[in-house]
Amino acid sequence: MLLEKACVSIVGASGAVGREALSILCEQGHPPEQIHLFGSKRSAGHVITESGHEFQIHEYSYEAASTCDSAILCTSAGISRTVGPKLAESGLIVVDNSSAFRMNDTIPLVVPEINGHLLHDGSHSGIIASPNCSTIMMLLAVKPVADLAGLASVTVATYQAVSGAGLPAMAELEHETQRYLEGAPSAPKIFPISCAFNVFPHESAGDKATGFCGEEHKIIAESRKILDLPDLDVLPTCVRVPVHRCHSQAIVVETETPMSVQTIEDAFRNAPSIDFIGTRCVTPLNSQGTNTVRIGPIRASTAKPATRFSIWACCDQLRKGAALNALQILELTGRD
Amino acid sequence: MLLEKACVSIVGASGAVGREALSILCEQGHPPEQIHLFGSKRSAGHVITESGHEFQIHEYSYEAASTCDSAILCTSAGISRTVGPKLAESGLIVVDNSSAFRMNDTIPLVVPEINGHLLHDGSHSGIIASPNCSTIMMLLAVKPVADLAGLASVTVATYQAVSGAGLPAMAELEHETQRYLEGAPSAPKIFPISCAFNVFPHESAGDKATGFCGEEHKIIAESRKILDLPDLDVLPTCVRVPVHRCHSQAIVVETETPMSVQTIEDAFRNAPSIDFIGTRCVTPLNSQGTNTVRIGPIRASTAKPATRFSIWACCDQLRKGAALNALQILELTGRD
Repeated sequence: MLLEKACVSIVGASGAVGREALSILCEQGHPPEQIHLFGSKRSAGHVITESGHEFQIHEYSYEAASTCDSAILCTSAGISRTVGPKLAESGLIVVDNSSAFRMNDTIPLVVPEINGHLLHDGSHSGIIASPNCSTIMMLLAVKPVADLAGLASVTVATYQAVSGAGLPAMAELEHETQRYLEGAPSAPKIFPISCAFNVFPHESAGDKATGFCGEEHKIIAESRKILDLPDLDVLPTCVRVPVHRCHSQAIVVETETPMSVQTIEDAFRNAPSIDFIGTRCVTPLNSQGTNTVRIGPIRASTAKPATRFSIWACCDQLRKGAALNALQILELTGRD
Repeated sequence: MLLEKACVSIVGASGAVGREALSILCEQGHPPEQIHLFGSKRSAGHVITESGHEFQIHEYSYEAASTCDSAILCTSAGISRTVGPKLAESGLIVVDNSSAFRMNDTIPLVVPEINGHLLHDGSHSGIIASPNCSTIMMLLAVKPVADLAGLASVTVATYQAVSGAGLPAMAELEHETQRYLEGAPSAPKIFPISCAFNVFPHESAGDKATGFCGEEHKIIAESRKILDLPDLDVLPTCVRVPVHRCHSQAIVVETETPMSVQTIEDAFRNAPSIDFIGTRCVTPLNSQGTNTVRIGPIRASTAKPATRFSIWACCDQLRKGAALNALQILELTGRD
């Protein structure tokens, strides 16, 4: 007898990540009747059409959501903190995309290709955290190099799409662009600075002591936890660019032992969730809708022997950077 | 008796850098009748209005240009190689903005604030090269840190405006953006990839052996020559962003001895051609038309003690990155 696919609820289904989770589940052939969408009172009643099926968003209630086997939370950290523990107590596997539980010592923070083993050793109690999108894509690119030659440090400059700030940010990019082209003054609401024909340091609130913004702080802390390297030297500079979707990164990995570009390229060809392309044509625009981290040129620093390598990477941060990673976590728990 | 301001010819006056050179000379009060504009047959006859004066572009001829005291070449490397040496032989001071002479051992490559002394020691024979725009802005930000604590390495990720590829590239950004908003297919002519709502590795031709593109190669080679550090470890990743004007850079300076962010900030406050702002509001859009390298947040890496520092910088690359740097070189020679 074939087991029925388990019932999944998507909480926060009207947002950018929630919609992507629905889209991926449908692509994967998950039975539509086994997918339940929940949202705020404002979103309740909205119908989303995906793969020829109509899905209605229901107002979230613990009673309704807890009838499922699992929940993908695509909610703010505040809402995740409220709904996550209660659903987990009811026996659901809860995978959370927010920052609510990521740095909690008792909750695993998982990129399946890197530390998916944590899901098999009984170290979770129902809630599993999915990392920040920038962390996921950076670590997938860093891991094969780290496995080859050890990690002395990681430096990254990001080129982050506006959709990281949600669907309204994508609309703001178009409005602001139109205003610029018409000569109208900038009037941003989501971002503190106009994103049209501009780039700016990431808008998340900064830490006065270190100068790192929230996004940069997440990359540092989450990387250390996922790689289990609590003192890893990570130096991120996070920047928004006027791109709708897909983050790009200029990553510099410093290895403990010298290495050749050729060896790194070979490792990428065999690495999970990596699409090694190697040319200068890897861009966010042509990475939309893909499920991997797409790698462009890799170059060794001019020092001999080389221990620093520049890696250009693009990733659809709504998919592998969020919704897809969460669904892969769920799959590993056996509750998909 | 007051000396008359010397006569300056701008060769390649219709291009982005040529127009900027004219604009800066007028701002500085250079007598309009002492500014002569030259261009190709195609540009000849065009009239540029600047600061209330009309300037006509004349077709370039050696006979006409050599009547001036100096020439600012805003031409391609090929044209600079043809016209530069002949004008210099006639006794003109020639400042070239192209890559034609930059790596020539007998020609100084000058950022006045860094190695302007080369112009006083008789080491030039009439031609002086102005560096690549990305090199100029990066080195102005690197130099104060290097002077404090020595340089172990420099890593940079660039966010380069399309105007680095000339005025037609600025028009292409607008056309491509309009096409994208209207749902029309992309049809780039200047760039190999659409620049609308996209970022991509710099389009200059790459070197197969190292993987570095032309722009990255310039940053490495020119930095070593200007700083007189022939083995300096420089690791650049050059990327185009959909910005009209002003380059941005995420620079990571690795020092030889530990240093504090506070000390670096103090050095920037006193550094020439640096505007230390320190906030996350430094963007290319608000740096247009400025004459300095504008510095945003500076952060130390998480290693203790810190020897790696991330510096966010924006610079109007048509001004301090090109035309203004060339005019400052000319001023230092005493022939402005």
